Amino acid sequence: MSIESDIILIQRLANAADEAVAPFFRANTKVEEKADLSPVTAADRAAEAAIRQMLKRDRPTDGIYGEEYGVERGSSGRVWVIDPIDGTRGFVAGRPLYGTLIALIEQDKPILGLLSAGAANDRWLGCTVGRPQTTLNGKSVRVRPCETLRRARAASTHPLAFTAAGHASFQRVGRSVADMLFGGDCHNYGLLAAGHLDLVMEEGLKPYDWAALVPIIQGAGGLITDWHGKPLSLTSEGHVLAAGDHRTHREALERI
Amino acid sequence: MSIESDIILIQRLANAADEAVAPFFRANTKVEEKADLSPVTAADRAAEAAIRQMLKRDRPTDGIYGEEYGVERGSSGRVWVIDPIDGTRGFVAGRPLYGTLIALIEQDKPILGLLSAGAANDRWLGCTVGRPQTTLNGKSVRVRPCETLRRARAASTHPLAFTAAGHASFQRVGRSVADMLFGGDCHNYGLLAAGHLDLVMEEGLKPYDWAALVPIIQGAGGLITDWHGKPLSLTSEGHVLAAGDHRTHREALERI
Repeated sequence: MSIESDIILIQRLANAADEAVAPFFRANTKVEEKADLSPVTAADRAAEAAIRQMLKRDRPTDGIYGEEYGVERGSSGRVWVIDPIDGTRGFVAGRPLYGTLIALIEQDKPILGLLSAGAANDRWLGCTVGRPQTTLNGKSVRVRPCETLRRARAASTHPLAFTAAGHASFQRVGRSVADMLFGGDCHNYGLLAAGHLDLVMEEGLKPYDWAALVPIIQGAGGLITDWHGKPLSLTSEGHVLAAGDHRTHREALERI
Repeated sequence: MSIESDIILIQRLANAADEAVAPFFRANTKVEEKADLSPVTAADRAAEAAIRQMLKRDRPTDGIYGEEYGVERGSSGRVWVIDPIDGTRGFVAGRPLYGTLIALIEQDKPILGLLSAGAANDRWLGCTVGRPQTTLNGKSVRVRPCETLRRARAASTHPLAFTAAGHASFQRVGRSVADMLFGGDCHNYGLLAAGHLDLVMEEGLKPYDWAALVPIIQGAGGLITDWHGKPLSLTSEGHVLAAGDHRTHREALERI
């Protein structure tokens, strides 16, 4: 498969997910709790089912790992990682920042990542094959410089989503930045890639939460690692630190 | 002036503000700090100037109270209260939840309130003259029932925006609800009016932050008071508690 055909496909997957999700937005959709207490709706399931159906037809030998329907092994060495709705809590409250995340992983590395925030009409696509690149609605975007943490505009979805030790680290970083926005989920990482935010720090993210964000951040010239500065991997503990500028990233690591 | 002509005018004021703000959104607009350390941009000033210009022409005897350009007394007993961009912190980070807030106050009571979240394409209009009513993009909306705080989906912009005493109250309420979303600014109140959220609790709001929200929440059948359950007034301390259901509201007051 050429990367071009993968890019065409991932856009079609996102279109299908957007179409599946839209009828449920602000429709007082019923919220169920999963075993891990995270919320799920018929919209999450419909979006993931739509994506899986297309993948099975167009990429029958690729593996699939989705939040709602789990893992299906493939034989090609490639895996599509899906979070049908990242930010379900905001989604069920009618907040237009939720997004569908789709990543293509090859030899354990995310090479293609898409974030479609359908209600906000924001779609990011990052690619690290060849010359890394990220687009927002088709236009190339870049991270912005931020020479010191003290000037950084940062974001984190939920201040109570940290463990006790994680919260102490978060507070040390949070006290050092110019501003800390809360809420936002995956949308924050898109804004970082587009040069509007300087830092995102979170804990407890699953691979389907961050896989698509890696090519998006890296394609825009940014850094996304764990809290030790190491590449995120499927065995990571879900500590994510993303920055547009390596100086901000290093300073944040020192505080952590 | 008839309320109908005020409604036509307030929509035109919002159109002018949206037009003034749009060119600055995601344009890496310079952020300045005001004396109270709150951020301000050229977009805030352009939007308020556009609104003031129209008001001076069309309502020369009404007073004006705006966040950026202060108070101009009128002789009609009516005052227009303006927050050109509520959620400036999110605005400068490219987050599409910021909004322009415009209220018309008569005899110290907000009778008309408009919230235009231009980037999200969400515009709420609330009116308490005659039969109270609130619309979202022209369609009538209502709050939803929520029989107990334990089931409430709540929101608050910034967990660190509370005083020490306020934070203790916030934590007692926060621990009692089903979910607490952060971020969102004025947009959260719109979602409450449209029946997607059940509770919003905040501290430190200025009259231009809440004046437009009063008719929007009340027109949709909800409650918006201070933390003692009393109506918000220009001399209130900026403690705001909004709920869609009086049972949730009462329970939250007990926790506070």
